[in-house]
Amino acid sequence: MSMSKGVSKANLGNCFEDFRLGQVLRHATPRTITSGDVSLYTSLYGGRFAVQSSKEFARRLGYRDAPVDDLIVFHVVFGKTVPDISLNAIANLGYAECRFLKPVYVGDTLSSVSEVIGLRENANKETGVVYVRTTGRNQRDDVVLSYVRWVMVRKRDKAAIVAESVVPELLKVVSPSDLASAVPGLIIADYDMMLAGSTHRFADYVIGEKIDHVDGMTVEEAEHQMATRLYQNTAKVHFDQFAAQGSRFGRRLIYGGVVISLARALSFNGLGNAFHLAAINGGRHVAPLFAGDTVYAWSEIIDKQDIPGRSDVGALRVRMIATKNVPCSDFPNRDAGDAFVEGVVLELDAWLVIIR
Amino acid sequence: MSMSKGVSKANLGNCFEDFRLGQVLRHATPRTITSGDVSLYTSLYGGRFAVQSSKEFARRLGYRDAPVDDLIVFHVVFGKTVPDISLNAIANLGYAECRFLKPVYVGDTLSSVSEVIGLRENANKETGVVYVRTTGRNQRDDVVLSYVRWVMVRKRDKAAIVAESVVPELLKVVSPSDLASAVPGLIIADYDMMLAGSTHRFADYVIGEKIDHVDGMTVEEAEHQMATRLYQNTAKVHFDQFAAQGSRFGRRLIYGGVVISLARALSFNGLGNAFHLAAINGGRHVAPLFAGDTVYAWSEIIDKQDIPGRSDVGALRVRMIATKNVPCSDFPNRDAGDAFVEGVVLELDAWLVIIR
Amino acid sequence: MSMSKGVSKANLGNCFEDFRLGQVLRHATPRTITSGDVSLYTSLYGGRFAVQSSKEFARRLGYRDAPVDDLIVFHVVFGKTVPDISLNAIANLGYAECRFLKPVYVGDTLSSVSEVIGLRENANKETGVVYVRTTGRNQRDDVVLSYVRWVMVRKRDKAAIVAESVVPELLKVVSPSDLASAVPGLIIADYDMMLAGSTHRFADYVIGEKIDHVDGMTVEEAEHQMATRLYQNTAKVHFDQFAAQGSRFGRRLIYGGVVISLARALSFNGLGNAFHLAAINGGRHVAPLFAGDTVYAWSEIIDKQDIPGRSDVGALRVRMIATKNVPCSDFPNRDAGDAFVEGVVLELDAWLVIIR
Repeated sequence: MSMSKGVSKANLGNCFEDFRLGQVLRHATPRTITSGDVSLYTSLYGGRFAVQSSKEFARRLGYRDAPVDDLIVFHVVFGKTVPDISLNAIANLGYAECRFLKPVYVGDTLSSVSEVIGLRENANKETGVVYVRTTGRNQRDDVVLSYVRWVMVRKRDKAAIVAESVVPELLKVVSPSDLASAVPGLIIADYDMMLAGSTHRFADYVIGEKIDHVDGMTVEEAEHQMATRLYQNTAKVHFDQFAAQGSRFGRRLIYGGVVISLARALSFNGLGNAFHLAAINGGRHVAPLFAGDTVYAWSEIIDKQDIPGRSDVGALRVRMIATKNVPCSDFPNRDAGDAFVEGVVLELDAWLVIIR
Repeated sequence: MSMSKGVSKANLGNCFEDFRLGQVLRHATPRTITSGDVSLYTSLYGGRFAVQSSKEFARRLGYRDAPVDDLIVFHVVFGKTVPDISLNAIANLGYAECRFLKPVYVGDTLSSVSEVIGLRENANKETGVVYVRTTGRNQRDDVVLSYVRWVMVRKRDKAAIVAESVVPELLKVVSPSDLASAVPGLIIADYDMMLAGSTHRFADYVIGEKIDHVDGMTVEEAEHQMATRLYQNTAKVHFDQFAAQGSRFGRRLIYGGVVISLARALSFNGLGNAFHLAAINGGRHVAPLFAGDTVYAWSEIIDKQDIPGRSDVGALRVRMIATKNVPCSDFPNRDAGDAFVEGVVLELDAWLVIIR
Repeated sequence: MSMSKGVSKANLGNCFEDFRLGQVLRHATPRTITSGDVSLYTSLYGGRFAVQSSKEFARRLGYRDAPVDDLIVFHVVFGKTVPDISLNAIANLGYAECRFLKPVYVGDTLSSVSEVIGLRENANKETGVVYVRTTGRNQRDDVVLSYVRWVMVRKRDKAAIVAESVVPELLKVVSPSDLASAVPGLIIADYDMMLAGSTHRFADYVIGEKIDHVDGMTVEEAEHQMATRLYQNTAKVHFDQFAAQGSRFGRRLIYGGVVISLARALSFNGLGNAFHLAAINGGRHVAPLFAGDTVYAWSEIIDKQDIPGRSDVGALRVRMIATKNVPCSDFPNRDAGDAFVEGVVLELDAWLVIIR
């Protein structure tokens, strides 16, 4: 009796041949964001941006409350997609067109929907790449976050016939006019740079400038597990040491989002007035991170732009590099052969909104 | 001067001969449940039930807010009893007649009272078994939780004369008519199964069906210590590695409630619409869990019943088994000699309330 | 081009010669205290004082809500000073005149200001001692906390000429008339000693009495890192294992405030009605604590005083000793040569407010 086998009711995730172009997946478990989530986020990464830390500071600027960290929103929206999109993923290949569109406050409830916008079987017929555009919405159905990600997913059956490849065209860079809709018009005269922890404004940064964020943060198993569960991300590789023993690395892999959050928190030291992550143009996990590794980060300003209609804030485009066990005073980067030097774990191309 | 010895003011816990039949113990430290507790609970176990995760989802169904996880209530009420009941316990022997009677919301304040309902000295005269009925109440004095537990407690003095044995008669199974008072009448038409993460309703489960909950969760020292302190549970064995070095296992023991919470959270995968733990008919910690172990779980449906007066929800009686370092695709169970196979750590007999 | 070196925008902290007598430093990152912070604090230390745990209990006594633990206030106010005062500190030498002046509730926003009140170069010309008076204020600009601390800070340049030494005169003991402004007039008739977890009032303690707090708590890396980040304390020594490998201890050092919080939480067992830490007369970290160590504590009552104008509460002056890996049933203390015996990590001289 197949019923008594029981596997029928547990979700085993989708394989490559289960996805259809244009398919819309409404993901499970809407999640109300609370002040507990915000505290845990602070305790896990140590962020110090004043706008997200103090409701008084945020209100004086023009927010109705302290907005939650943009990456809490990203991780919660992302986490919901895992059971449907990437439970059988072999690799998270990339991100594009990621935009934070509305502020999220404690008490808001987030849910996620993904649309399949591309499918490409690999030549080996054992795997394929799935492209999805995921939108996170609040309880008023406002889109608060939108991004594209593509993952390599296993096929259940090598012989399964799949549709012709469709690879979406994606923007290399989010347009400056699409930034900062999550930032209300700010009363900049009331912006207190001492309280904010930095005296550097938009005008003070120059293209080509490199900033070592100096500090290092060692990650423990308990920390990344607590972070990843907080986002209700169920990817097995982060939690199951018994299974991991038999895997290639023999260790639990740390969710890539933990690295992004650590790098962002470390970047306060040098980018303290760039309080809003407005967009991620692209991102790549160069190497895995494991418990016991120490994360460092540095940033290069690769562009700066006015934001149409805004005299309060401007946009810095940064290329942020995170490393493991390699301090960043020498800005570890690609070598002559264009490969990243040993120790680099993350390359992120992002737009930050900063006070003018 | 005995005063200067100082031990007089520190609580050293009760020994077997300190308990009296009918004795009522009002336990210390009333505790207001906050959204921080809920976030920590999510970060520690990774639960994904929509009713507890989203106030919007809960309100649409008929709750006044998202209720907190039933096991938060259990652990908080239980934790308060430890200094008075089980500080000198050798073993937690069992649970019965555990019923969750009212929803608990963020902002409610819980306190615990226990009545001694049975006492039985062991033949060796060195220990005895204490049976207590513990009730957890909110700030309006509503009983939100009631359960019986029995523990083996050390005697201070082997020669101490104790009263005749009284062993209470306990129900093997909570009656279906006593379930679901913690669930308001639900507007089932608004129950969104996609958001809930499961398409399986009451009618879809059959008696005898076994469900492998698939995922595994490795527990770290920091995680179980943070969980157990959150519940203000003071049992030394969970926290003191220096003392544990000289003990039988040489390790800190993980609070059994951590295993119950992990199994319950894992059971979402296969029982996603069974959002309420209504009663625990019996439970047994078969073997201890230590940091570094990976917990898996499976469930067998052993009964299903209508709940009198309710057309919105039904009750599934499940026997849930949790293991350490043994995946559950083969449903590890008792062997021919009726002993549990290696790796089983928990057997729990519980009633779940599920959408019809 | 120095700009491209990038170090210019990251804070590298002040060296001894950067400080000026009378200098006022407004520290970064105002912080709204939330119920998430309170839950995390409970999960990290396991405190059980009823006043801080239950809003119902607190309100019945006369508080408008449950106040947050005094040491949350201390750690948050202290954490903000680290980037400006002690990023280049070699040692945290002492505390004095620390007073908790107003209750802090969830929703209050704290910020910190420090004034340099003393400077003394060391004979080796390589370091100096900086004395600061730090005040923590809430969003209404009420001072909630004031304390003096002195730290040994590196000089950037041994040859730098510094001003003449000024060493402030500090009180050995905070006056009883300066205690308890953070405690509203209490309706003592409604104080429930069973719920509070102790039957010992002000009158029950005698000068010279020693109290072993019995329990031990082992600290994990994840726990102290999460605690220290929660307070946005950025001292590198707590977080960077890669750098620590090359240091004297080869390990991350645990923030001394973690030891203070653990000792205070353990002291509930014996001082359960001393629910308010009113003042710290002096404190000294005798030895470092590392992950894996188990903390124990004991207290000696060294004075007791009426608080002028208060018939509801009195003040106990305690000398609290915390140890690592040494249980305190024998009250480990100074040896014949006045040096602390092996295992002592903290000596704290504090005023506690207790129910009469």
